Amino acid sequence: MERKIVSPCVMIIFGGTGDLTHRKLIPALYNLFYEGNLPDSFAVVGVGRKDKNASEYKHELQASLEKYSRYKIKPEVWEQFSKKIQYYKMEITVSEHYEGLKVFLNEMDETLGTQGNRLYYLSVAPSFFEMITKNLAQYKMAENVDSWQRLIIEKPFGHNLETANYLNTEISKVFPQENIFRIDHYLGKEMLQNMLVIRFGNALFESFWNSRYIENIQITSSETVGVENRADYYEASGALRDMLQNHMLQLLALVAMEPPAAIDAKSIRDEKIKFLRTLSKNNAEIIKGNIVRGQYGEGKMGSKPALAYRSENGISPKSNTETFIAAKLIAGNFRWGNMPFYLRTGKRMKQKTTKVVIEFKSLPEILYFKEYNGMQPNLLEIRIQPSEGVSFSFNAKRPGTQNGITNVMMDFCQNCSLENNSPEAYERLIADALKNDQTLFTSWDEIEASWSFIDNIANIWRQEQPQFPNYAPDTYGPSDSDVLLTNNGHKWWNT
Amino acid sequence: MERKIVSPCVMIIFGGTGDLTHRKLIPALYNLFYEGNLPDSFAVVGVGRKDKNASEYKHELQASLEKYSRYKIKPEVWEQFSKKIQYYKMEITVSEHYEGLKVFLNEMDETLGTQGNRLYYLSVAPSFFEMITKNLAQYKMAENVDSWQRLIIEKPFGHNLETANYLNTEISKVFPQENIFRIDHYLGKEMLQNMLVIRFGNALFESFWNSRYIENIQITSSETVGVENRADYYEASGALRDMLQNHMLQLLALVAMEPPAAIDAKSIRDEKIKFLRTLSKNNAEIIKGNIVRGQYGEGKMGSKPALAYRSENGISPKSNTETFIAAKLIAGNFRWGNMPFYLRTGKRMKQKTTKVVIEFKSLPEILYFKEYNGMQPNLLEIRIQPSEGVSFSFNAKRPGTQNGITNVMMDFCQNCSLENNSPEAYERLIADALKNDQTLFTSWDEIEASWSFIDNIANIWRQEQPQFPNYAPDTYGPSDSDVLLTNNGHKWWNT
Repeated sequence: MERKIVSPCVMIIFGGTGDLTHRKLIPALYNLFYEGNLPDSFAVVGVGRKDKNASEYKHELQASLEKYSRYKIKPEVWEQFSKKIQYYKMEITVSEHYEGLKVFLNEMDETLGTQGNRLYYLSVAPSFFEMITKNLAQYKMAENVDSWQRLIIEKPFGHNLETANYLNTEISKVFPQENIFRIDHYLGKEMLQNMLVIRFGNALFESFWNSRYIENIQITSSETVGVENRADYYEASGALRDMLQNHMLQLLALVAMEPPAAIDAKSIRDEKIKFLRTLSKNNAEIIKGNIVRGQYGEGKMGSKPALAYRSENGISPKSNTETFIAAKLIAGNFRWGNMPFYLRTGKRMKQKTTKVVIEFKSLPEILYFKEYNGMQPNLLEIRIQPSEGVSFSFNAKRPGTQNGITNVMMDFCQNCSLENNSPEAYERLIADALKNDQTLFTSWDEIEASWSFIDNIANIWRQEQPQFPNYAPDTYGPSDSDVLLTNNGHKWWNT
Repeated sequence: MERKIVSPCVMIIFGGTGDLTHRKLIPALYNLFYEGNLPDSFAVVGVGRKDKNASEYKHELQASLEKYSRYKIKPEVWEQFSKKIQYYKMEITVSEHYEGLKVFLNEMDETLGTQGNRLYYLSVAPSFFEMITKNLAQYKMAENVDSWQRLIIEKPFGHNLETANYLNTEISKVFPQENIFRIDHYLGKEMLQNMLVIRFGNALFESFWNSRYIENIQITSSETVGVENRADYYEASGALRDMLQNHMLQLLALVAMEPPAAIDAKSIRDEKIKFLRTLSKNNAEIIKGNIVRGQYGEGKMGSKPALAYRSENGISPKSNTETFIAAKLIAGNFRWGNMPFYLRTGKRMKQKTTKVVIEFKSLPEILYFKEYNGMQPNLLEIRIQPSEGVSFSFNAKRPGTQNGITNVMMDFCQNCSLENNSPEAYERLIADALKNDQTLFTSWDEIEASWSFIDNIANIWRQEQPQFPNYAPDTYGPSDSDVLLTNNGHKWWNT
């Protein structure tokens, strides 16, 4: 495979001294470089308001790299890589500063042969998205004539359909849609990409991928951590906007969409959009009884005391922000009919895991085996993170018994062996943006469909006060989340 | 589960000093006793022509037990168990000796309270089956009045349909069909019993268990050993009668039969018979091109020299006995249509394994993934022995590639962990005979259907001389066996 990126370019990171740059972006670039995949003519410019020179900046990044790179840092490789790093000090709110940046970048083109190609990475608060793009337009830094300029935007993209729509309109005035890369780092995860291969590269899986064989599909993305140091952001977004609107719905779309006509960006997006639009069938009335929100109270994680959400640093003691959400959704199309999709995500939960569990229909109610006990439906589990793998649970004979049943599991673990060193999501995503491959990025139409569904939920919630806190740390969330399933004769498969 | 057998009984082993008794029968009885499953009133009588007393006999058995039991022998358990063992010297060809045996057994009834119940185990050459049963009849040792008498017969049951038919008629005059237990020790293997649970205890498996989803089914039972010390027997039977007629067809029937109405002996047998009768569709003309026979030549197993079959001790240097057979069979029923079942069995092969591989239909010929390579059909493999387990091979994304495909495997291994100590086939089978459960024994109708099919093959073979030897040791058999599959666009899945 040709993995090397040929198009020369300068990547500009707004928010170049931020956490994401240190933890994810620079390690991703280093790994791409280490594997020989970056273009020969390439540089990365960290943009920040802090006063520092390139050498100080590099020194800080090197320290982070030692911590976060999946490769051990080799001094000779770092030396070569660090030559590609620059720092540029400016205030992103001050329009005139963009002119200086432009001159700085143009000079790099001269030295490096980067030909005016730019990848702007907005690793800043969403409130700056519009301002930055407008300034890039004003100084003709995104003309897309004779060279290319692309924009990578981190989530959240808007706060609801209206604000997302406004933002989309504004940045579309500067960048054509095909040059806007809305990143959802979940889509860069190996097992999430694997979902397409598992579904469409295996005749058998696709054969039973519908409601005739499947009883329900459960998607869980749970964290053990609390709100950590993102109080402001989280208070405004909550689990609904932080997780459900993007990661969870994207994962759901990949699991539930129809087979695309081809494995390319447009075909896959078309199918995802088509699926996301089916969610509009879950109108206000239906949704009302099918969504559970939660907020963690005080308690313990293992043996360590854990604060209630409302007591966390920077959080209002009366906050009604949800740290947990569970939903039962219906697609109502030919493939899925009224089969429920159960989604849940939360903080301070018992396990850190992102996984999809497919529960197959049970046998007809026949007491087929003499010593009938422990019979369980067949489960296909696709683990996204931190464990990556696929397993299938089925009933087998308990050895030594007449016809006693036991539940056993076939397992494939992708990241169990030490040799495995899967690329990080950001490596794949940055490389794809440099290659102009939109497959793993979210299109505007997907964003639009997601928000109209999410707005429904937010509107309902506004009408009534939640009883928070309603779940203890180190649990699987509020009991209503279990009730949501038991009402349908189902249960969460937690292990 | 109630596993203890309650009905008191004396088990009489004709061939009590033979290899099977030492290696399998006594260890099986010891293990049943050790686990507390034998009846309180129970004894086993070894019948032999050699002159020895009970104490000598016990001593010999103890030595074998140390070698062959899956439990470590505890002296206090052995002491208790050995009290149940007796030896009886007689010539089985001398009618009058049966009278002595009868008296001996009746005396045991007095001492032990075994109430006249008998389990006669014929672990002798098949030529003695008729004679022994006739003598048992003559001395009214199988009256089945006020007490029960059952017969366990080891294979082979006849040499063809005619001789099997004759034998069946003769022993049926003495024992009612329901008291005749034709043993096929393969049916006692854990994973073979598991076949029923896997197929009918899992909604998903049964859903795709037909020719709409399955491309072909491959059943392999291969050995690495040569003919060993069974020259006389093997020269007369060959792989056709030694393996295909019984073990392989039984395994095939369990894999391919329709779901039985209940999990009981009669229902299961009915379905097996129904399936075995479909094999008559493979008439002489069809079979001709669909059967491959082989005989191993001289060569090496690993680095050790190995004799040709014709050079083995006791084998004719011009022998045309087959040590390998491969067959392509069609069931021609609704479930399987013209889907091929491929069966093969042989000696001196590369691997010791008994397994079933289910190859699913491939994807339509679409170049779905950009870096299409290494795409493989989905395979479900059920391993019977020596490894016991189930695995499923499927295509997944090769980590770190764009859309590169790799073939990965989910695996469940039943006997990988040291704790696992599955009962031996003979434990289960003897216990079932003592309990009067015929489920895992072969009915006359099954034998009849098997032989009529096997006779077809033998008849064709008689008409032409094979070109033997035609395969080297430590291989997968003659090249014609591969051609049999490649002619259909298939291949053996060897690993």
